[in-house]
Amino acid sequence: MDDRLQQLTALVARLPGLGPRSARRVVLRLLKNRETLLRPLAAMLEKVADALGECRICGNLDVCDPCHICADARRDPAIICVVADIGDLWALEKGRVFSGTYHVLGGMLSALDGIGPQDLRIAQLRQRLASDRRIREVVLAMNATLEGQTTAHVVAEALRDLDVRVTGLAHGVPVGGELDYLDEGTLMQALRLRRPVEAADGS
Amino acid sequence: MDDRLQQLTALVARLPGLGPRSARRVVLRLLKNRETLLRPLAAMLEKVADALGECRICGNLDVCDPCHICADARRDPAIICVVADIGDLWALEKGRVFSGTYHVLGGMLSALDGIGPQDLRIAQLRQRLASDRRIREVVLAMNATLEGQTTAHVVAEALRDLDVRVTGLAHGVPVGGELDYLDEGTLMQALRLRRPVEAADGS
Repeated sequence: MDDRLQQLTALVARLPGLGPRSARRVVLRLLKNRETLLRPLAAMLEKVADALGECRICGNLDVCDPCHICADARRDPAIICVVADIGDLWALEKGRVFSGTYHVLGGMLSALDGIGPQDLRIAQLRQRLASDRRIREVVLAMNATLEGQTTAHVVAEALRDLDVRVTGLAHGVPVGGELDYLDEGTLMQALRLRRPVEAADGS
Repeated sequence: MDDRLQQLTALVARLPGLGPRSARRVVLRLLKNRETLLRPLAAMLEKVADALGECRICGNLDVCDPCHICADARRDPAIICVVADIGDLWALEKGRVFSGTYHVLGGMLSALDGIGPQDLRIAQLRQRLASDRRIREVVLAMNATLEGQTTAHVVAEALRDLDVRVTGLAHGVPVGGELDYLDEGTLMQALRLRRPVEAADGS
């Protein structure tokens, strides 16, 4: 293979979910569709690279600033969902389960990776809460891992003196989950947080 | 998601092996690595798109013309491997099993898709054989499918009056293949083309 094609294949192989073999298939498809796929993709990547930036309000990466979520007047300004990473924001957006806005911390606390509270966008969150009086609630949507929950606690602590409700995601049995396959931690939480079951109509 | 990001995700999702979900992961990775991945990839795609063309000798798609295989003086000029498609050429190159040069037909005969002999680069192959006297053998490396074998026969027929040896790939049990899992056609061919087994030393 030519040097440039080899370099292209190596770049493609660095994308998640692609290895050397599938990268070759991707490059082959691109070569065979120069005008309909290769050129449009190159142009769109260039365009996105030029426009890409951090949203000054929430820290989301987007091609406009404020990002399209912060700029959307239909979103509820009273509730902010704090996520560690843009990937988490996308996961929530994909599910269309949240109608408020976001705040991206930019990572999770990690002693191993040397990430402390000052490396996360916690000060910006405090500032945002202080300046935007419409915000009534902050939902800490962190992974249910040690790092995620530690981060949630530290953020909650940092917001304690502010007049805002701080909540976290519920733990429990995932929808469609089978008890037999769940870990002890989840079962314990699901049992601890058990809720009354409403009786069916007419019973 | 912003319009441009959505368009980028849709383009990425058209690549082989990627769906909407993995395309989102790819775009996310690109956004997070603007300078180390997004920009280099955009630039390399642009470069390849500009340089890409069909090799005037063999029909391979490459960023140089003649392609890097035809231009390689270490390849054997006496033997040409005729393949239907660039993907087949890449498969053979990846295996490093062939040291001659190639001729890409640009497809297989297909009544269903309306592809006839005039749509394949058969005339160019004849011309190449007529003008390059070093070529002694043409290997027809077609798929062992109905379309592939029909194409091979038509190409062989078209070369009959030329002074060149025309061969095809052997059929048989693939290396590592288990008889129990092979189809009847392969078994029949393997049996028909059976070969004497050399006795082990000292027997």
